[in-house]
Amino acid sequence: HGIKGENYRQLFSLTRALNIPFQYVPLNKLNRITQKNHQGVIAFISQVSYQPVDEVISMLYDSGEEPFFVVLDQVTDVRNIGAIARSAECAGSNAIIVPEKGSAMLNAEAVKSSAGSLMNIPVCRVNRLSDTIKELKINGMKVIGVTEKASKSYRDVLYKGPLALVLGSEEKGISGAALNVCDETVAIPLFGKTASLNVSVAAGIVLFEAANCRSKEE
Amino acid sequence: HGIKGENYRQLFSLTRALNIPFQYVPLNKLNRITQKNHQGVIAFISQVSYQPVDEVISMLYDSGEEPFFVVLDQVTDVRNIGAIARSAECAGSNAIIVPEKGSAMLNAEAVKSSAGSLMNIPVCRVNRLSDTIKELKINGMKVIGVTEKASKSYRDVLYKGPLALVLGSEEKGISGAALNVCDETVAIPLFGKTASLNVSVAAGIVLFEAANCRSKEE
Repeated sequence: HGIKGENYRQLFSLTRALNIPFQYVPLNKLNRITQKNHQGVIAFISQVSYQPVDEVISMLYDSGEEPFFVVLDQVTDVRNIGAIARSAECAGSNAIIVPEKGSAMLNAEAVKSSAGSLMNIPVCRVNRLSDTIKELKINGMKVIGVTEKASKSYRDVLYKGPLALVLGSEEKGISGAALNVCDETVAIPLFGKTASLNVSVAAGIVLFEAANCRSKEE
Repeated sequence: HGIKGENYRQLFSLTRALNIPFQYVPLNKLNRITQKNHQGVIAFISQVSYQPVDEVISMLYDSGEEPFFVVLDQVTDVRNIGAIARSAECAGSNAIIVPEKGSAMLNAEAVKSSAGSLMNIPVCRVNRLSDTIKELKINGMKVIGVTEKASKSYRDVLYKGPLALVLGSEEKGISGAALNVCDETVAIPLFGKTASLNVSVAAGIVLFEAANCRSKEE
């Protein structure tokens, strides 16, 4: 709180302009983090490369690729989010979209659970997921929500072309706002007594159904 | 170590006959576990119902069902084994086979990770997995190993009829001894840079491919 001057003003306007989360803390907190000369500011660099959605989309279209995105609506378990990122990368998906709030931190444990794949796939943090889904649709993408409430099986859908798969949290599934803007919803029919699959397993099943459909020549 | 007499001899021969793991410990360890009158012996009851493989097989055939088993070769992560049990139960599998040694403990955390499904599916603990696989084959089951080393895709196999799917550990995959006795091996083709999927995701993908194939009328 004691920092002032031109450097501070520049830093402050840059963090705001680049949408970097920041926090004011007491000096002794900084001193506990490092004994080096920190000059009143410490930055943590994420292991994950965050990118704006629109840039990823235009980059893909420019290079002749079709977007294949995974949208995670408030998946809160670090290991699940890591495993889903790993499956997404393995299935040939080219971005993961998460909301700024209510999502698991993409920390070292998430990167470990992803077997490093979180560093090989762009991650987009967005403000309102339902707005972003509308944006994806405007950009020509089909948006399919995976939810137990759907009546259609995930086996009865075409996954060709620009595509986004939406997955919800373990507890609440996809939020109403996001579900309302999906083009279609699909469920994984179950054959046992257990009510639902683990979210990272469900993600893997639909991701590879999509990947196999997309890889088929026609 | 201080217990003797007829009761002890009976208990000892029963634990041996029923193949129940036991351990000698100092008296103060028992006293730390309970302050009640333990009389020198404490038993832990598993939340999981262990059953002999041959009994499960004849029970299924007797009731006109076709066995659909999941064999886990040294999956050591409690959460992975729980998630696989959950997927197996959801896919309509009717037993899980694990080796006595080198497998994750089926403790409260495993049951929690399985969303309780570990209590809805029989678990068979066996001594030598490769011997058990041979026994499954003698009983008319097709045994398919899921391994990255296979050249055939998991999409190009028929999963109809009595079936066992074999999955290996995260680190080493299926052991050589078990792999040698499989009828067929299949791989999940990947489309990204990451070398492999999480074992519980891989299990879910092949389990539901099999479940969908098995549920189709012909």
